[in-house]
Amino acid sequence: MATKGVILSGMRPTGRLHLGHHSVLNNWVRLQEEYKCFFMVADWHAITTGWEEAKEVHPNTLEMVADWIATGLDPEKSVIFRQSSILEHAELHLLFSMITPLSWLERVPTYKDQIQKLGELGKDINTYGFLGYPLLQAADILIYKADGVPVGEDQLPHIELTREVARRFNYQFKPVFPEPKGIVNKEVAVLPGIDGAKMSKSYHNYISIGAQVDEIKNNVNKMVTDPARIRKTDPGNPQVCVVHKFHRIYNAGVLEEIETQCKAGAIGCVACKKQLAGSLETQLAPIRERREQALAKKGYIEEILRAGDEKARAVARQTMEEVRAAIFG
Amino acid sequence: MATKGVILSGMRPTGRLHLGHHSVLNNWVRLQEEYKCFFMVADWHAITTGWEEAKEVHPNTLEMVADWIATGLDPEKSVIFRQSSILEHAELHLLFSMITPLSWLERVPTYKDQIQKLGELGKDINTYGFLGYPLLQAADILIYKADGVPVGEDQLPHIELTREVARRFNYQFKPVFPEPKGIVNKEVAVLPGIDGAKMSKSYHNYISIGAQVDEIKNNVNKMVTDPARIRKTDPGNPQVCVVHKFHRIYNAGVLEEIETQCKAGAIGCVACKKQLAGSLETQLAPIRERREQALAKKGYIEEILRAGDEKARAVARQTMEEVRAAIFG
Ligand code: SF4
Ligand code: SF4
Repeated sequence: MATKGVILSGMRPTGRLHLGHHSVLNNWVRLQEEYKCFFMVADWHAITTGWEEAKEVHPNTLEMVADWIATGLDPEKSVIFRQSSILEHAELHLLFSMITPLSWLERVPTYKDQIQKLGELGKDINTYGFLGYPLLQAADILIYKADGVPVGEDQLPHIELTREVARRFNYQFKPVFPEPKGIVNKEVAVLPGIDGAKMSKSYHNYISIGAQVDEIKNNVNKMVTDPARIRKTDPGNPQVCVVHKFHRIYNAGVLEEIETQCKAGAIGCVACKKQLAGSLETQLAPIRERREQALAKKGYIEEILRAGDEKARAVARQTMEEVRAAIFG
Repeated sequence: MATKGVILSGMRPTGRLHLGHHSVLNNWVRLQEEYKCFFMVADWHAITTGWEEAKEVHPNTLEMVADWIATGLDPEKSVIFRQSSILEHAELHLLFSMITPLSWLERVPTYKDQIQKLGELGKDINTYGFLGYPLLQAADILIYKADGVPVGEDQLPHIELTREVARRFNYQFKPVFPEPKGIVNKEVAVLPGIDGAKMSKSYHNYISIGAQVDEIKNNVNKMVTDPARIRKTDPGNPQVCVVHKFHRIYNAGVLEEIETQCKAGAIGCVACKKQLAGSLETQLAPIRERREQALAKKGYIEEILRAGDEKARAVARQTMEEVRAAIFG
């Protein structure tokens, strides 16, 4: 069957998304034109690092998927589904666990790092499930026979593990799985938070993807600019300015002009911020509107997920029949 | 709901059973009168220690379940089902994995023992799945809310892990699970193989539960007797005689008489064996007959399993709804 490539990608349901996620979503929107895409709400993954937020998984899922739809994911083109609805992921994870040496998991570079990092925050995640986390990812990916997985650089070792598991399965039983490639999107520009640190929900330094006009304005006003600039006629250095980093993405057309004006002291930071806020509003308004419409229709998101679960399940079941036949047949 | 206690027990599908399994099965038959029993074909467990026999799982399941039925397990009273048919086991195993410290699994006494033992046989089972094996057992047991699990002495640490997992889940979320007890049957007499070693398929020293007359006779004839006895009038020592160990179970009514005669040199080994073979034939003939009937009816065993899978699945789904509500609710 000559067909489009298959992509799997997912996000943990952390609730409303912010502009730090925007480029990832835009990338997904592009990918869905070229590939058969599966976009997964990674709700089981959400609890591998702690249970505190388990009660938020349902509401957070609805908020997040509303953002997905608002940004342009199309449930007619792509399969939008919940990991925990497809028990076959757990079955494949279990079967994979029996051909995966412990050492493969222990040597995943993020493993010890994360245990330590979370340990410093007083979180003990030294569980069996946390060790097996990349294996659950392998099952997530391979059950849809994905060829490609859009990932950040730091996730490449996980994809390498997925490829190793696929290879071992194919060799030991039958060639059921492709060896998926990690697709690192070099174009994804990292957007800082309004304080210059990493944009993150827990730092309260973010702008939501569906932000209201006031949220946009207030946050842009709070953005950290070149601290050496006292008067608006002082020459500025855009390289150290958060506003400039946002212009680069949301105002690319006038970026050079702004840089020149800033360096010449020909534009004040207030005016510069006003320009950014205007541009953000222009670009986020349609997203905000679609978001609100999606959430206003009672049961709309749930129905998208229900239908997506069904499509995902059909594919997963088909793969599992092949897997069971390969092992037991 | 005041109800009977719930029992879960299972066996790996190794094919036809032998008399070494007979006392376990007889115990199951007794238990099904008093408890709501779930008897599981542990087909996922069968592949935790190697894949070599995966292809035999299906035919072995049919042979084994035929023995179960022939010995007296009643599909009307008990739920006879396949582990791998109930994906909810894999789901619960996955969820448990996230609350189970690695150290709990590493310290299960059988873990390191078995890795070493199988390592000496050239089998490398140092996999993620083998480490998690007792956790899959915990899911098997708890998903049916079993109160009791008939086990051998060596399995008690696994039951202790199951209890710990239940406790942790109940404490962290909601009290969903009972803490099951291991039921060690002290009455189970250990029957040796015909050569005096452990009765085992791989030693070829066994008598099948559904053995034909010839298999019974030939094997009884080969049984190792008191080696010091040369002539049939020599006084014998029943304590060192395999035949005597079989009489103890399959000829208990005349055991004392045989002992006395043997010690007095009043019975020859040939006659003594003949008596045992006769008694075995009397007791195994109805089992053999039921076994052959069960296998002769095309699709009969499959239908028992299909119906059992359905009953098990209904209970497992009910539990998983409670589990999901407790975690995410
Ligand atoms: S003028 Fe604009 S780019 Fe220059 S420092 Fe002020 S806000 Fe930043
Ligand atoms: S007489 Fe029976 S019990 Fe005694 S040694 Fe011979 S076979 Fe064994």
